[in-house]
Amino acid sequence: MDLRHAADLIEWDERVYMPPGGVSVHGEMSAALRRLAHEKFTSAEVGDALTASTAEVADVDPDSTPARLVAVIGRDHARATRVPADFVAEQAAAVSAAQHTWAEARASSNFALFAPHLQKVVDLKRRYVAFFPPAEHPYDVLLDDYEPGMKTAEVKRLFDALRQRQVAIIQQVAARPAPPAAFLSASYSESEIWRFAVDVVSAFGFDWSRGRQDKSLHPFATGIGANDVRITTRWVDGQPLALLFGTMHETGHALYEQGVGDEHQRTPLEGGTSLGVHESQSRLWENMVGRSRPFWDHFFPRLQAACPGPLNGVSAAEFYAAINRVQPTLIRVEADEATYNLHIMLRVELELALIEGSLRVADLPDAWNARMNEYLGLTPPNAATGVLQDIHWAAGLFGYFATYTLGNVIAAQLWERFGATHPNRDADIRRGDFSVLLTWLRTELHQHGRKFEPTEIVERITGLPPSPEPYLRYLEQKYVIERLT
Amino acid sequence: MDLRHAADLIEWDERVYMPPGGVSVHGEMSAALRRLAHEKFTSAEVGDALTASTAEVADVDPDSTPARLVAVIGRDHARATRVPADFVAEQAAAVSAAQHTWAEARASSNFALFAPHLQKVVDLKRRYVAFFPPAEHPYDVLLDDYEPGMKTAEVKRLFDALRQRQVAIIQQVAARPAPPAAFLSASYSESEIWRFAVDVVSAFGFDWSRGRQDKSLHPFATGIGANDVRITTRWVDGQPLALLFGTMHETGHALYEQGVGDEHQRTPLEGGTSLGVHESQSRLWENMVGRSRPFWDHFFPRLQAACPGPLNGVSAAEFYAAINRVQPTLIRVEADEATYNLHIMLRVELELALIEGSLRVADLPDAWNARMNEYLGLTPPNAATGVLQDIHWAAGLFGYFATYTLGNVIAAQLWERFGATHPNRDADIRRGDFSVLLTWLRTELHQHGRKFEPTEIVERITGLPPSPEPYLRYLEQKYVIERLT
Repeated sequence: MDLRHAADLIEWDERVYMPPGGVSVHGEMSAALRRLAHEKFTSAEVGDALTASTAEVADVDPDSTPARLVAVIGRDHARATRVPADFVAEQAAAVSAAQHTWAEARASSNFALFAPHLQKVVDLKRRYVAFFPPAEHPYDVLLDDYEPGMKTAEVKRLFDALRQRQVAIIQQVAARPAPPAAFLSASYSESEIWRFAVDVVSAFGFDWSRGRQDKSLHPFATGIGANDVRITTRWVDGQPLALLFGTMHETGHALYEQGVGDEHQRTPLEGGTSLGVHESQSRLWENMVGRSRPFWDHFFPRLQAACPGPLNGVSAAEFYAAINRVQPTLIRVEADEATYNLHIMLRVELELALIEGSLRVADLPDAWNARMNEYLGLTPPNAATGVLQDIHWAAGLFGYFATYTLGNVIAAQLWERFGATHPNRDADIRRGDFSVLLTWLRTELHQHGRKFEPTEIVERITGLPPSPEPYLRYLEQKYVIERLT
Repeated sequence: MDLRHAADLIEWDERVYMPPGGVSVHGEMSAALRRLAHEKFTSAEVGDALTASTAEVADVDPDSTPARLVAVIGRDHARATRVPADFVAEQAAAVSAAQHTWAEARASSNFALFAPHLQKVVDLKRRYVAFFPPAEHPYDVLLDDYEPGMKTAEVKRLFDALRQRQVAIIQQVAARPAPPAAFLSASYSESEIWRFAVDVVSAFGFDWSRGRQDKSLHPFATGIGANDVRITTRWVDGQPLALLFGTMHETGHALYEQGVGDEHQRTPLEGGTSLGVHESQSRLWENMVGRSRPFWDHFFPRLQAACPGPLNGVSAAEFYAAINRVQPTLIRVEADEATYNLHIMLRVELELALIEGSLRVADLPDAWNARMNEYLGLTPPNAATGVLQDIHWAAGLFGYFATYTLGNVIAAQLWERFGATHPNRDADIRRGDFSVLLTWLRTELHQHGRKFEPTEIVERITGLPPSPEPYLRYLEQKYVIERLT
């Protein structure tokens, strides 16, 4: 854990404060630490200790921390030891080359240039799957790296339930006139927005004595355990409020990390249980809280006071409608709350087909464009704004995209459950009081770290595994019933 | 080297950006990295590789990089393997307790509280010495940790030559009226001084693409190899220019680190050859350059333009006299260029006597006060401003203090040599051009890293080992002949 922490911190530094000359010395340090951590974790000593402790906890309550700790280490150890070091090295070299070519291909919007690299990555992923015992679906193995225990069949069921109704919601919204939003891209002071964002996330409960915020090119959150959790944000010209919503988003991740119990620190149970559950926390604070009407009833007068220029004469209702504007876009990272999942479904469906072998790499751009038209009514003018827009496939991150939608779905499910058991939810937020919400999340979810698998913890909290209904109800309530314009 | 770099960077972070909650996770990371680096370096593989490579370079030019690399690794390895791990752990625990008690003792100005801890540290140091082959003087072993190859006899000769003449210089200066200096503690803008300091060290040649500057409680410089060199500075209320001179000082260290040759990167030859030679670079840029008349002829109008309030009506000559004011003080870290060495001599003489056994710990405060009176004409009113002021002894850093004076002496020796071979030295500085000076330092000193031992490299550059005369000539020229008032 010390070596992993050290590598995490060095990678944070690389993205936040490293001078350009430090690239190679950073690469060497972090490679050495990751390699050593891997060597130590896959050593015979850990294997033997694992065998011994598995026997030791055989009669212990299977939900107890010792039993779960041994189970999680066992799962991690099996994954780390099944894949030969040669393969890891071959894959690292291939994705490094693929990312390099992807950047070139995107710049020149030339899919053919990238295609052979993508083919190689797909082949590697299929070989990777073969190192593991046969699963229901080969994609299960890939998914398991990000969502332990989650099955492809569950993801498909979820997506099938979401697809049509989500498209229908968007079509209803699109039929109405868009609310005015020019004031969102007016001239704001970066330092005022920064200060306002800090006030907001302080109210959420971000613990500054155990964390900090800096700027980086791409916003992220990283936890060196629960007591040193760092978030970053950025200032984007023309999108001044991206800093604010980005800060809320990363704070969602940070609150999860800061909330993991002391007993799990410096053990493999620290951190969040999966990318999807992690994303549920960032989405919950950014969207369910940070784009809600009660939130802005409280905070809009404060934002207006901090930024009187651009918000002069704007009402809280107008502001609320503007920040929730739905507008289909070609680009995933610019998508709003209502259309985001469709970007994800498109990608997951295509990567499933690639892994299954039912879609050839050469046919990918056409398949992309057809789906983009079906889901969002848009046709990419070129590969750069279509199939080449994301780095994930070049980086070998097959199985990753699904976690974004899982995050949305789980967020809504937790939000609905919390609302059902806490009738003062909206009234508290309208007073700027998030303490009951945070305490509930801490108690139900955060404190457990990786002790429970994602499906299991969601079921423990809400009574159901990740399910589409709460999310659809949330969208329908906000975008159809309230009819915000 | 990767593990050492990682530990260095984590320790930088600890002092610069770590939130308070990160203390223990940082401690664990850095202890794990230092322990692993030590284990790997003292392993049988390194021992065998060293034996093999020693044989391999037996017939190679002894001044070549391969021969020197093997020699330096051999020296480091011998030091690392001679001291048993148990002793290292015992010493770590003792100095940790000693530092804790020292802080308490200083706060209550109670030497008796600290005395038993100091006795323990002294005993440990004597046991440490015993792990090494008998030296001319037991203190040689301690000195060797900071100044490889330097002998106690050399340090004594140097100090004997400096003592009387330096006291005489100070007495002559003290007999004259002090120049006015109230404007130095007037109200300056921190951001203006920061910008000015950045301009100055950019002119010195600090490479910002391979380094950065931040703030920390105590200023320091750290090199993660030559391509990521970080300095820090601080804002001290009432001493606004401390930020500027501190930046120049740390830049001196940084220029040395940034100048070490590519061939030495990621090998034990990277970094500076000793603390004393390192300190010579910080003192040279801070004092010989940054407190010189030619420097301020160029920069004073710029500083005045940046800070018109406090410097209105002040002349370059008045400013120069004020920043070079000589004023004996009880506190080492507040001492000026002319009196600083006397603080060091006092300490080195006392620690020599402690190690030799000719001074008992109980008699240390009286010995301190007597020397303070002899050298600087001052008597500490209490132990806190006397014998308890520095953390070094509590931290077990016996042998360290001498390097400060060696730094001053070597700086003056290099400065004189450079001046003798570069008659345009002062004219260049008066134009704000430091390129010839930096190129000379790079060529003569920086590029070699740890390849040559301190005495050897000083002799290679100046024709003499570290010698007192250039430093005394420098002080006499500046403080007696120029008679700045």
